[in-house]
Order: sequence, then structure tokens, then C-alpha cells
Amino acid sequence: MTPGADGAAPRRRGRPPRTRSGAGPDARTRILEAARTEFALRGYDKTSVRSIARAADVDAALVHHYFGTKDEVFGAAIEVSFEPALVLPAILDGPEEDMGERLARFFIGVWENPASRAPLLAVLRSALTHEPSKVLRGFLLRRLLERVAAELDVPDPTFRAELAASHMIGIAILRYVVRAEPLASADPEKIVAMVAPTLQRYLADR
Amino acid sequence: MTPGADGAAPRRRGRPPRTRSGAGPDARTRILEAARTEFALRGYDKTSVRSIARAADVDAALVHHYFGTKDEVFGAAIEVSFEPALVLPAILDGPEEDMGERLARFFIGVWENPASRAPLLAVLRSALTHEPSKVLRGFLLRRLLERVAAELDVPDPTFRAELAASHMIGIAILRYVVRAEPLASADPEKIVAMVAPTLQRYLADR
Repeated sequence: MTPGADGAAPRRRGRPPRTRSGAGPDARTRILEAARTEFALRGYDKTSVRSIARAADVDAALVHHYFGTKDEVFGAAIEVSFEPALVLPAILDGPEEDMGERLARFFIGVWENPASRAPLLAVLRSALTHEPSKVLRGFLLRRLLERVAAELDVPDPTFRAELAASHMIGIAILRYVVRAEPLASADPEKIVAMVAPTLQRYLADR
Repeated sequence: MTPGADGAAPRRRGRPPRTRSGAGPDARTRILEAARTEFALRGYDKTSVRSIARAADVDAALVHHYFGTKDEVFGAAIEVSFEPALVLPAILDGPEEDMGERLARFFIGVWENPASRAPLLAVLRSALTHEPSKVLRGFLLRRLLERVAAELDVPDPTFRAELAASHMIGIAILRYVVRAEPLASADPEKIVAMVAPTLQRYLADR
């Protein structure tokens, strides 16, 4: 995840190791945005570190330097929306009795945001068809679910967190992928109102 | 869905119209079993009416005669497990206060059955990547969800039924596709116990 952890860019044969073509304070952001667009437009299979670099107008070595492999760029692209450092306090801080509602509202909000929806859809499709073990298990479970679970004061916290996640994944599929009506056109707050008590029970009922 | 509704097999040029090669009381069952196997092994794209016919040792015309297009064979293959005529009474008959539990147990039971799990996995993957409008929307929504919803005495019954379905689809994905632990190895009854109150609230709470 941090190929440059020693502070040096990875050395590439025949290329000056410190030439970070396109590098700069915005390069990281530009790469992540390009990655989200590429994954959304091309899908997982047809996106490459090279195509992301091209779209971000940087050298492929810089993409490797910041993020590592394509899998790792993919993970980073998802975390734009689900960055645990931002998500966890948003869900876990505040009155425990509203946790389900905060989680439901956060989740629907991320999906309702046009900027994150397209890459998330691509991510969801990719994760279900390509190496779900790496992508969805690695990201969703290790990075987010287990951290949420660690904060829960219930029996079987990871099991509970997975049940909550399963519901939200299923809603995303029926609403945004399958576009099942009336769910697809329902007011987000109507969904939050119905789903919040479910999430609350899973995450907080002892 | 019923190309032979007038009682005649579809006519194929250069082939005697009544020659139902391989036809017989078991042919329909054999075709469905072959279809489930083919879809499970090859996925949706690579399965054809011809490959199903070959696997069932019948003429392709007979597959067309019984089921119609590949899409329709696909639908029929799913309905082996989710035949509404069997499912609806199993879920809807009985005390209303146990409906959520019956639905959860039925759903987990179908997935735990090795005979239905493989084609269901293929179906789930296919539905999410190929023409979900036709496959998942057509089958899941029209055939099953709307019929369940028609029996419910709650506001927004289809919306409620879709929320229940979304949860079960998400559980199938995390447990059987992603194989997220501890959900993947959890005792089915433990899942039923946690999920039943959720389904009950969606399907029966006014």
C-alpha cells in the first residue's frame, strides 16, 4: 500500500527514479478522480494503472508510487467515499440510539451523490464478478466493517456489522443497479426511516 | 413463455414439426436441470439454448417448445427454486406474527440447498451484470415480490417487499459470493433469528 514508505519513489529501469512526471500537491487527488472515472467508465477489467495515469496526466510510476497496484488504486478510489477516518466518527459519534439512522443516512447520502454513485456502481459490479475476495472482502470487511464492529458494544459485533452491511448492499443493488420500482424512485428519507430501526437493532441491541 | 400455447410445437424449416427429439414425461425436468447446470458452470453469456439442449440430450426445438428463448429458460431455471405457487403459501400461510421468520427460513433454506445454490449464484452474478432489467426485474419483481406485496396488509407493500428482498439479496452476496466471515460460516438458524424481526417489521408492521 505504501511502496514509497522509505521515502523513495519505486525505481523503474531506464527512467530517472525521482522524475515524478506530473507530481504536485494535486496529483494524488487528480489520480484518484481519474481512477474513479476510469473504473466507472471502463469497469474493473479494462482499467489499468496506465489508463488511469493517462487520464490524470501523470506518469504511471507516480500512480504506483502513491497507491501501488491496480487493486490498491481501486481500494483508494472507493475510500474517497468510504474513508474510515471520516466515516467512523460520522456514524459512531453521537447518541447511541440514533446510530442506525446516522448509518442509513450516511449510506444513502453517499449513493445519492452523483460524484460517488458511478464509481460505486462499477465497484459493486466488479466486486461481485472479479475477485470479490480481494476487493470487497479486503476493503469492506477489513477496513470498514471490522473497525465499526470494534466500536460496537453487542455480542458478535462483526456478524452484526455484516448483517447491516448486507442490507445496505442489497438496497444499493435493487435501487441503483436493478432500479426496482418503487424503491428506485423513493425519497431517500423514506428509506432511511424504514431502514434505520433495522440497523439500530443490529448495531446496538444487546 | 408458451410458444406451444395452441397445442402445436413451433415449426422449424427442414425439420418435421412434430418430431420432438428426446421428448417425454421427463424431458421438461431434464431440460431444467441441464439449464441450471449450464448456467451455473458457464454463466449466463456462454450458455445457449443449444448447449442446454445438448446437455439434456434433447433437440433444441424442444427447449424452445417448452420454454421459449434463453431468457425464458433462465427464468424457468430460477423458478425451480422460487416457484411462486410453492413459495407464496409457504411464506404467507400461517400466523402473521411469524411471517418474517418463515420468509427468512425459506430463503436461507433455498440457499443452503447445494442443488439450488450453484445456479442461484450464477443467476445472481448474471442478473447484476447482464440485463438486470430483464432477468432480475422481470422475475424477482413481477413474479414474486408483487405477488407477496399483493398479500400484505401494510402501507406501500411493494416498497416493503423490496426492502425485505434487498436484505436477503445482500445476505446472499456477503455469505455465498463474498464469503465474508463470520457470516459465511454462521449457523443458518442464527441468521434467521437476527433477520426474522427485520422482515417481520417490513412485511407486517403497519
